[in-house]
Amino acid sequence: MTGKFITFEGPDGAGKTSVMNEVVNQFQKQLGDHLIVTREPGGNKISEQIRRVILDRKNTEMDYRTEALLYAAARRQHLVETILPALQADKLVLCDRYVDSSVAYQGAGREIGMQAVARMNEFATEKILPYKTIYFEIPVEVGLNRIAKHRDSSKIDRLDVETTAFHKRVHQGYMKLIDEYNDRFIIIDATQPIEKVIQDTTDVIHQIASEFFKES
Amino acid sequence: MTGKFITFEGPDGAGKTSVMNEVVNQFQKQLGDHLIVTREPGGNKISEQIRRVILDRKNTEMDYRTEALLYAAARRQHLVETILPALQADKLVLCDRYVDSSVAYQGAGREIGMQAVARMNEFATEKILPYKTIYFEIPVEVGLNRIAKHRDSSKIDRLDVETTAFHKRVHQGYMKLIDEYNDRFIIIDATQPIEKVIQDTTDVIHQIASEFFKES
Repeated sequence: MTGKFITFEGPDGAGKTSVMNEVVNQFQKQLGDHLIVTREPGGNKISEQIRRVILDRKNTEMDYRTEALLYAAARRQHLVETILPALQADKLVLCDRYVDSSVAYQGAGREIGMQAVARMNEFATEKILPYKTIYFEIPVEVGLNRIAKHRDSSKIDRLDVETTAFHKRVHQGYMKLIDEYNDRFIIIDATQPIEKVIQDTTDVIHQIASEFFKES
Repeated sequence: MTGKFITFEGPDGAGKTSVMNEVVNQFQKQLGDHLIVTREPGGNKISEQIRRVILDRKNTEMDYRTEALLYAAARRQHLVETILPALQADKLVLCDRYVDSSVAYQGAGREIGMQAVARMNEFATEKILPYKTIYFEIPVEVGLNRIAKHRDSSKIDRLDVETTAFHKRVHQGYMKLIDEYNDRFIIIDATQPIEKVIQDTTDVIHQIASEFFKES
């Protein structure tokens, strides 16, 4: 058995994180130590410090390229401290967002350019990409309505204060990525009832990482 | 008259910063508001926050690529907040270190690769390079001896704790940059008495930015 790196991607409001939590609850019983669930900044000290700079609501003058470089720096440290050691220890790594998020959000959403952000991120990742990426698809408006309904407004940070046009560009960015990497992306319909989304996600992971489930 | 961007580069112990301070003292009387003297992080809030993460001595687990990305992020913000507005206001901008430092220190010194660091920094700078770069040349051992003599040991940060081999690689990195950009680099012999180094630097700046001195 070798390690396997799977990422979760999708626009805001797709329910990605809730679904991931539920799926992980199920898997943890079966896989125990063979499973690592993580997301940037991933709890490491340096990436947390970087994250604080990015999310500080007072940093309104932050240039979009500065923001993209900071995400890449936090990603690099998370990769080196968390993901690579887990893969080397032959674990199943489920990661909530990775390079695709930067390419969609900063490249397309912020209009820096998807290729420019992707190329810069290659410096951070040394071209290490996930084995598969599970993408939670939802129309932009549906996702935004969900956010508006569920979010505690006191918790809203700098990044939430974005226009619908921004979120539409992000979605289009994801569509281009799916087109470019159609071997890597697996699309899940996130407009379905949550139980169905969880079931689909579980099935997909069973299929693409079957070697982990045979053993237990 | 248009703005002009001039950088100062060189290995540690070349006396670059002391010379720069002296030169600037002279020029400030002549040029007043037409002169901007700066260095990364350049006093802007975001770059200062990034700098604190880089220089924190407790961050010993920092990966070299994370470090390079953080320098690029601070550089980007400094470029956008300080250098570009000054150039647009037709000023003479003297900047202590810029991209060449990252290419020499992180690319060659840390052995990430000069080309990889240069390419990643193009994302940060959008390929904006200095009009001229004044390079203070000094043999590695001479520079390191000077540092050892003058530094207050309580002020030593994470970056000072480096081996001679590292500083030799940095120096070789600069030599390659000078070779590649020989139209941009102007070399000053920093082993000369300090008065002569200051005089040479003043002369060079008079020559390459003569339009600023004719007016005053």
